[in-house]
Amino acid sequence: MTSSIFQVIAFDADDTLWHNERLYVHAQNKFVELLTQYHDPKWIRERLDETEGRNLQHFGYGIKSFALSMIETAVELTEGRITGQDIQQLLQLTKELLRAEVELLDHVAETVSELAASYPLMIITKGDLLDQETKLERSGLAQYFQKVEVVSSKTRASYERVLRRHNITPEKFLMIGNSIKSDILPILELGGYAIYVPYYTTWIHEAADPPPSEQPRYYALEHLGLVPELLAQIEDGV
Amino acid sequence: MTSSIFQVIAFDADDTLWHNERLYVHAQNKFVELLTQYHDPKWIRERLDETEGRNLQHFGYGIKSFALSMIETAVELTEGRITGQDIQQLLQLTKELLRAEVELLDHVAETVSELAASYPLMIITKGDLLDQETKLERSGLAQYFQKVEVVSSKTRASYERVLRRHNITPEKFLMIGNSIKSDILPILELGGYAIYVPYYTTWIHEAADPPPSEQPRYYALEHLGLVPELLAQIEDGV
Repeated sequence: MTSSIFQVIAFDADDTLWHNERLYVHAQNKFVELLTQYHDPKWIRERLDETEGRNLQHFGYGIKSFALSMIETAVELTEGRITGQDIQQLLQLTKELLRAEVELLDHVAETVSELAASYPLMIITKGDLLDQETKLERSGLAQYFQKVEVVSSKTRASYERVLRRHNITPEKFLMIGNSIKSDILPILELGGYAIYVPYYTTWIHEAADPPPSEQPRYYALEHLGLVPELLAQIEDGV
Repeated sequence: MTSSIFQVIAFDADDTLWHNERLYVHAQNKFVELLTQYHDPKWIRERLDETEGRNLQHFGYGIKSFALSMIETAVELTEGRITGQDIQQLLQLTKELLRAEVELLDHVAETVSELAASYPLMIITKGDLLDQETKLERSGLAQYFQKVEVVSSKTRASYERVLRRHNITPEKFLMIGNSIKSDILPILELGGYAIYVPYYTTWIHEAADPPPSEQPRYYALEHLGLVPELLAQIEDGV
């Protein structure tokens, strides 16, 4: 497809290609269960969110950061009364998260394989480097992606660096993801195309308002299976 | 220098450009101090090393992994009797490591600046993505490096991927670093040049025997300040 509008199509990974946030939700529930003798569930959740938000600048994204924030919150909430056994359970939970099966979202396998036949595909994701790499391996999708970038944050500046590094023209770049804040807004700012495919739940630190639906080069779809048809329409200038 | 033997010169970062291992040694000493009421120092150190080694496959490299391994070891060694206050101290220590001043090794500032005038320079490092990026920023050296790669491991395969990605010919590639295992041996296997600049202490999981001194394309130097002279000799075919 030499005359395509798109030079490269990039995907977010967590909750765009495979389930992720629900693993964290499961872990948070376990965390609340563990501390429920000390505080009420709502307060425990709020404090964990707060610790995570505060630690993002130090720890960055990913499971190891989440684990350290869980442990910190547990110590603080119990005023140091948390037991070693409970800490051990949190470490155990962390390792379960790192080993969890990679479950693709509906429509992902066939859509990615179909798109790879027509476009160079790329992954741009944040999180723990090793964890993201092994998840891609375990997903069975690695063969379809020519480029993989694990970045420490998804800002306009970090996307600019990635595009420059791969000689990609922003106006010919399409990003597909489930986070308005991380996958959509920075790309639209750069003059690229963005498709928002919402996941059923969003981490509080990723929440943001979607752009207005009449924003040029911005699209929202119910699931990834609808992407090829949309791309055909865009390519045809419909 | 269009006729140079070297297309790119790459540096390891931790303990090659700036001090790193001594921060961990300091943290390990603090860790031993904290647990000294439970066990003898030698045994505490051995168990921490063992936990780190076992967790590398799950957690990868870097400070957050080290922190989780410290906490795990503390819980195990005390059979769960570790207090929340002590865990909090380990978290505090972790944040201190992440914020620690980046101190360049001797000769680094002037050598890097000198080499950058003649060669495209690159960093290839492993560890936490965010931590390595911010250390490079804080080091004041970022301007001299055209490319930065944070990788999850430094094996022959991971170097091959990096070189392919940047269209670098292995035979025209030079890597400089303080780890025989991670910076030297994989590069020599690929047919590249490698300069070993030992740091005064080596992490147990990086220990390996150096190649014989007559190995082609392998050099060992006492400090980074000796690199420009060696390169001049190599370029002159001396």
